[in-house]
Amino acid sequence: MLRTHTCGELRLNDVNQEIVLCGWVQRVRNKGSVVWVDLRDRYGITQLIFEEAETASELMDQASKLGREFVVKASGMVVERVSKNDKIPTGDIEIKVTGLEILNRSEVPPFTIEDDTDGGDDLRMKYRYLDLRRGPVRNNLTLRHKMMQETRAYLDGQSFTEVETPVLIKSTPEGARDFVVPSRMNEGEFYALPQSPQTFKQLLMVSGFDRYFQIVKCFRDEDLRADRQPEFTQIDCEMSFVEREDVLHTFEGLIRHLFRTIKNVDIGEIDRMSYEDAIRLYGTDKPDTRFEMQFVALNDVAQGKGFNVFDSAELVVGICAKGCAGYSRKQLDALTDYVKRPQIGAKGLVYVKYQPAGEAGNSDASFKSSVDKFYDQNDLKAWADKMNAEPGDLLLVLSGEKDHTRKALNELRLHMGNSLGLRNKDEYKVLWVLDFPLFEWDEETERYHAMHHPFTSPKPEDLDKLESDPGSVKANAYDMVINGVEAGGGSLRIHDRTVQQRMFRQLGFSEEEAQAQFGFLMEAFEYGAPPHGGIAYGFDRLCALFGGSDSIRDFIAFPKNNSGRDVMIDSPAKVSHEQLDELGIRLVDR
Amino acid sequence: MLRTHTCGELRLNDVNQEIVLCGWVQRVRNKGSVVWVDLRDRYGITQLIFEEAETASELMDQASKLGREFVVKASGMVVERVSKNDKIPTGDIEIKVTGLEILNRSEVPPFTIEDDTDGGDDLRMKYRYLDLRRGPVRNNLTLRHKMMQETRAYLDGQSFTEVETPVLIKSTPEGARDFVVPSRMNEGEFYALPQSPQTFKQLLMVSGFDRYFQIVKCFRDEDLRADRQPEFTQIDCEMSFVEREDVLHTFEGLIRHLFRTIKNVDIGEIDRMSYEDAIRLYGTDKPDTRFEMQFVALNDVAQGKGFNVFDSAELVVGICAKGCAGYSRKQLDALTDYVKRPQIGAKGLVYVKYQPAGEAGNSDASFKSSVDKFYDQNDLKAWADKMNAEPGDLLLVLSGEKDHTRKALNELRLHMGNSLGLRNKDEYKVLWVLDFPLFEWDEETERYHAMHHPFTSPKPEDLDKLESDPGSVKANAYDMVINGVEAGGGSLRIHDRTVQQRMFRQLGFSEEEAQAQFGFLMEAFEYGAPPHGGIAYGFDRLCALFGGSDSIRDFIAFPKNNSGRDVMIDSPAKVSHEQLDELGIRLVDR
Repeated sequence: MLRTHTCGELRLNDVNQEIVLCGWVQRVRNKGSVVWVDLRDRYGITQLIFEEAETASELMDQASKLGREFVVKASGMVVERVSKNDKIPTGDIEIKVTGLEILNRSEVPPFTIEDDTDGGDDLRMKYRYLDLRRGPVRNNLTLRHKMMQETRAYLDGQSFTEVETPVLIKSTPEGARDFVVPSRMNEGEFYALPQSPQTFKQLLMVSGFDRYFQIVKCFRDEDLRADRQPEFTQIDCEMSFVEREDVLHTFEGLIRHLFRTIKNVDIGEIDRMSYEDAIRLYGTDKPDTRFEMQFVALNDVAQGKGFNVFDSAELVVGICAKGCAGYSRKQLDALTDYVKRPQIGAKGLVYVKYQPAGEAGNSDASFKSSVDKFYDQNDLKAWADKMNAEPGDLLLVLSGEKDHTRKALNELRLHMGNSLGLRNKDEYKVLWVLDFPLFEWDEETERYHAMHHPFTSPKPEDLDKLESDPGSVKANAYDMVINGVEAGGGSLRIHDRTVQQRMFRQLGFSEEEAQAQFGFLMEAFEYGAPPHGGIAYGFDRLCALFGGSDSIRDFIAFPKNNSGRDVMIDSPAKVSHEQLDELGIRLVDR
Repeated sequence: MLRTHTCGELRLNDVNQEIVLCGWVQRVRNKGSVVWVDLRDRYGITQLIFEEAETASELMDQASKLGREFVVKASGMVVERVSKNDKIPTGDIEIKVTGLEILNRSEVPPFTIEDDTDGGDDLRMKYRYLDLRRGPVRNNLTLRHKMMQETRAYLDGQSFTEVETPVLIKSTPEGARDFVVPSRMNEGEFYALPQSPQTFKQLLMVSGFDRYFQIVKCFRDEDLRADRQPEFTQIDCEMSFVEREDVLHTFEGLIRHLFRTIKNVDIGEIDRMSYEDAIRLYGTDKPDTRFEMQFVALNDVAQGKGFNVFDSAELVVGICAKGCAGYSRKQLDALTDYVKRPQIGAKGLVYVKYQPAGEAGNSDASFKSSVDKFYDQNDLKAWADKMNAEPGDLLLVLSGEKDHTRKALNELRLHMGNSLGLRNKDEYKVLWVLDFPLFEWDEETERYHAMHHPFTSPKPEDLDKLESDPGSVKANAYDMVINGVEAGGGSLRIHDRTVQQRMFRQLGFSEEEAQAQFGFLMEAFEYGAPPHGGIAYGFDRLCALFGGSDSIRDFIAFPKNNSGRDVMIDSPAKVSHEQLDELGIRLVDR
């Protein structure tokens, strides 16, 4: 090695050692008679010192001319510092430099390489290799590294075999759009990049692999949102001869192991909730259960009192914000504006302040609401009782069509959770959501889609309703939700050819289509397919969760932007006519 | 779990336990009053027993009707076997079955699921999920799993960070052909799949990651040979602030760790050889050093004696086959035929038998050769001395143009090594080949190509010959060769923009081409790029080596055939017109 030590390891007991360090110049402080240089590498920062009295003048001169981000090799002796720096582990020592070699120069970087940089997003993405030098970004990727190692350690310990499934597979129209890859050797034909290794992992179960895992790149050609990337990483797992409880137990184990080894956190009890309850109590299938504030339906106490907005509503539903009765007019208006934003789309917000005794001139507790015209104190007391509200609380009520209203109230609940500091990013609440519907009705195409995917097993007791009442069929599916984020999801799978065929039929596949796309899987089911099930975690998102960030991009070394571009390497890009010709394709002239 | 135990774990001390097993029916033996069923899963085989005297008659009936590869769940009691089977770990016990459930039926498999199957290659590939049930194939993938875990354990222990580099990158015409992926969001533009993460790992070094690794899929759209796949896996590594010795030392450590943990083998000394010596002594840059039989040039002793074939040859070169002087005329003819095969292309083969005293009627040792007409006993003695031959040995000599002759003699040497049993697949010999030329001349395009790749650093002492005498410039490159197979290769890299530009110029890139394709890398070199170097191992091949096989396909779960097809899922395949239209491409009508 060009160095004897890294910039993060020298301590007081190394004093008087002759050492060599390599790294990047973080900072130069030149006091004329003394020059200090902070030398940085991945492992830390060590201070170099050049003193007029003791350092050769050429060396002084060389040191004072070092620029930011120069790469240097410095040799010298470890000495104790006069004024120590207790903010860094090497802060007790410095290096009295006797030799300095510039290994490479650096232009002035387009933004500062500091924890808080002055670089904007676009600039940092273009120069991602410089952005990656910054502590917070490096820490994110170090976290990711550790999560990969610990994930594999746990699964290997549970007898899972890591198997690499192919990246060049076959396009299937079901689900999101595939990326396709023209084949030169099979002109006119295309590979597709996998949206997940779903069918392969099921085939591995048919093969008797018993327990499979892989941390694997997947691909989706979707219009990108902030937290989506065209290529993303999954922890993909499958097990044979299992019941639902076995899968839940195994992956509770994984998540416990990760929290313990990576964050030194015991996540305690993992709650379970049915999909139905999640929707009813939180208006979403991924509730943030770090805080309560559950939905309470008020139809029976709020309807029939002459308030037409409520009377005509399918659902009147509220949440109770603890201790918020003192909200000002301005605050309440802001909440109303919040729910009326087009993304949320509520028509309005009804509030009820449960004012404690002694306030507003009342000797008893009393109610003040935006619908006092329609509801008297007794009416509002009934609401408050139903919601377990206490004096000092604020009730927030929405109404309208059921699904729509729940969605809006979910947003309001999360908003209130944020305002009240109930969503602490250092607190973790893990939840299983269970018993999803097998299908969801798509208004646009007027047909049923698979809520998870077409290989999800219906609950055995619902099997006979698959054709007669598909909407009521429950799936043997489960999602793991952490702090309101869907971390992973899976299901027991169909392992019977006939059931799989019925499923495809329900999803609108013709016999021929099903055969052409999934014939190999259905044929595999003819040769002794075991009962099996599994799960997949969104690994980028899991890393972001552990890192306390909302953005998966911060946890990907070289992410793409919202147009699917890598602005650093400038990709995608045009390719030559010859290359396309060899592939037997040409561009459409529009 | 549907089972209490696996089919591989029950032993004598489990006798009298009530257990449940799940697995596949390997074999049914029906003796009328007794039925035995071998139940198989990934972990082993356990014998089930059904006895007329003790088993309910429905159960007897059910058992006797089980077909091969049926999936069953059997409950019962562990009992000691009367006649034990010492060939399997569970051979001391069997299960007296009291309950049997068929979890899934199976058609008769298209080939037998046995270690030695009757299935041909094509059939096994089409039903790969059944082939994967066979012990040898499963063992290969288990080996692969272990090699992945141990590789990461070693590298993690050496402070390497695992970083996932992108799969959707940019096409570069240098090297092999890229697979490309049309971008829908950026119509008319394409991503490419990486042939290796080379530029990204170098950028990670510029980022200060210091030590990077990844076990990663790479892609090459090449016409396939037996040991090539369009998608393959690399162990990809890079380190900063290193000299060549540091890389060699670190990866000797990796390979030692793998041999020790996976095969319980100490590989001993790792030899080193220059590229020049490898070519001179073995005629290849990947010599199999499990056996000697080095080349000896004979020009000075064989030329000028009137044998025109040798006199006009650039090189006369031979090998000494120990103890083969007794080869028959037929054996020698077969060797001659071997070297004259078009793939090898020698014009002929000269042999010299060094006959021990007492043979062929001679009281002294003597020589018998195919060129006795031109060479007397003294001449041949001079050859033998030069080759350190002893009585009883056979000298095999080729001649002609240097490169061609060495290639042919390399093949003959390997052939003799096989014949003489010198290439034992349980013996491992690891070798570093060093000091490769930087460039190789391509006759076809009449220009220099990079022997490794364009980012390989020339040896500093040869830098001034880059333009004046490119053919003589040595690279700071190294290959790890195991048993004559190139397991890995790498180099110290260029980290200086000017040198990189000179390199691109030598490779025939215009300034604009270099900028368009690798501008981001050269720009990165302006911002403090550290000296760095690395290596990549062909992981599929490494697994095959460890598994004692020549075929990488045996170590890939779902390989493609020589036309790049996955015959199981029937991919690549046609995609819909709509899909192509969305991507803005169409097929060329030819």
